Amino acid sequence: MNSKYKTIKFKSKNFKKVQDLISIEEPLEMIVRYKKNNEWVDNSISITMRTPKNDEDLIVGLLFSEGIINKNSEIEKVEFLGDKVGKFKLKNKIRATLNSGENLDLKHLRRNFLTNSSCGVCGKTSMDSLEIICKKKINKNIPKIKKSLITKIPDLLRKSQSQFSKTGGIHASALFNKDGKALIIKEDVGRHNALDKVIGYSLRNSIFDDKNQFIACSGRLSFELVQKTLIANIGLLMGVGAPTSLAVDLAKRFDMTLIGFVKSDSFNIYCGENRILK
Amino acid sequence: MNSKYKTIKFKSKNFKKVQDLISIEEPLEMIVRYKKNNEWVDNSISITMRTPKNDEDLIVGLLFSEGIINKNSEIEKVEFLGDKVGKFKLKNKIRATLNSGENLDLKHLRRNFLTNSSCGVCGKTSMDSLEIICKKKINKNIPKIKKSLITKIPDLLRKSQSQFSKTGGIHASALFNKDGKALIIKEDVGRHNALDKVIGYSLRNSIFDDKNQFIACSGRLSFELVQKTLIANIGLLMGVGAPTSLAVDLAKRFDMTLIGFVKSDSFNIYCGENRILK
Repeated sequence: MNSKYKTIKFKSKNFKKVQDLISIEEPLEMIVRYKKNNEWVDNSISITMRTPKNDEDLIVGLLFSEGIINKNSEIEKVEFLGDKVGKFKLKNKIRATLNSGENLDLKHLRRNFLTNSSCGVCGKTSMDSLEIICKKKINKNIPKIKKSLITKIPDLLRKSQSQFSKTGGIHASALFNKDGKALIIKEDVGRHNALDKVIGYSLRNSIFDDKNQFIACSGRLSFELVQKTLIANIGLLMGVGAPTSLAVDLAKRFDMTLIGFVKSDSFNIYCGENRILK
Repeated sequence: MNSKYKTIKFKSKNFKKVQDLISIEEPLEMIVRYKKNNEWVDNSISITMRTPKNDEDLIVGLLFSEGIINKNSEIEKVEFLGDKVGKFKLKNKIRATLNSGENLDLKHLRRNFLTNSSCGVCGKTSMDSLEIICKKKINKNIPKIKKSLITKIPDLLRKSQSQFSKTGGIHASALFNKDGKALIIKEDVGRHNALDKVIGYSLRNSIFDDKNQFIACSGRLSFELVQKTLIANIGLLMGVGAPTSLAVDLAKRFDMTLIGFVKSDSFNIYCGENRILK
């Protein structure tokens, strides 16, 4: 989603007034509702800046990435709670109601979300988060892929992105099958949101497959993105940008395949080189 | 700061093993200590992923950006609290002790930090945050700058960055005077951290000047970056990347100068064109 803005463009020594398309960024409050001692409790777990659209996927993906749910069936319903303005309901609040929440460790939840963050490094960041991952079974069926497919990914991502070419300012995440077919692609001004939307959509539509898929992102590869990928039990992550040290450390610890700086004729392998078909 | 990692680089049809430099990303817990009813209270306000270095600047900048302090003198001391490992103290926890905290509105604080976020869109995001800004006096002495200076900024930023050229994966923020002199430049894997470090350093060293400065960032321009710039009472922000809709809306509301997509021969003006000297 984008909006039109009057912009002055300077290029080749000239100023020109144009109508420019700019990616929309708006706040969304995410609430989780669950039963405790037979009473419904609402907890505001996050206020995030995101590009509106696919908010149901975003909240489901986030709850999954944060270890609050393990499968989509744990969610009873997802609904917007925004105030009414005339006939319209504002879509700035969304709530996921859990089927059961007796075991929900709120302290843990609170801590996970107690974070301020930065480009590429956000969300649940404490070392506790690693524990959640370790409890999961880790995918041992990571796909082997050809180098010729890797170098095609930036182009495939760009072609599937509807917004980037228009605004130049939005991130994309996509789930691919091992043959390079984009199964689902989502965009957001926040790249972690883009990945949460992919994960949420895939869960809600039973798209995940333990063996034959990988995730590709348009930006840099942070710890957080590696973590979300691992929790989704996907063993291969690639990105157009640079990884951070902790992203590489985490990928090595779980023997994932991690590939960065993917371009049309080059890429870097940080982990899992034996799964790249030369 | 960066670390050496063994990497396999694929380029021009060949694979090559190299020692690669990767930007360090590590978690930091930030704690604010203040007195309430004559007792010291410690509150963990944020766990962020950052590039270690200048953490004192980071916590001071963040407390200021979030409206918790208004000047550096409100901070009594900043210290690391990390556990000792042999002779060394881990630098994964930092605490700022406030001179007075009786008026600290914790609910507000808690809400501000209750956020999960994404690339470029993080930190305090609810509309409440605008209130904090509105209470501030807004700089009416925004510098006028030449277009020839604007197009030089990407190069000036790159030259001042020590890490980017080595790792390709770190953001920079800088405070410039109106003549294009970089007064202070900071780097971080998170671009909001980079700006918080610039703001914290400038506060701690009395570098801010109400009339003659501007901020330049290496990445995209989110609402959050515009907000931090405004709170620092700087009226001109430029960046190498795209702005979001909310960033432009906020800049317009406070009549800032906002310039994006800055390159060596082009840029876009979203607000404040009357202050660009042609």
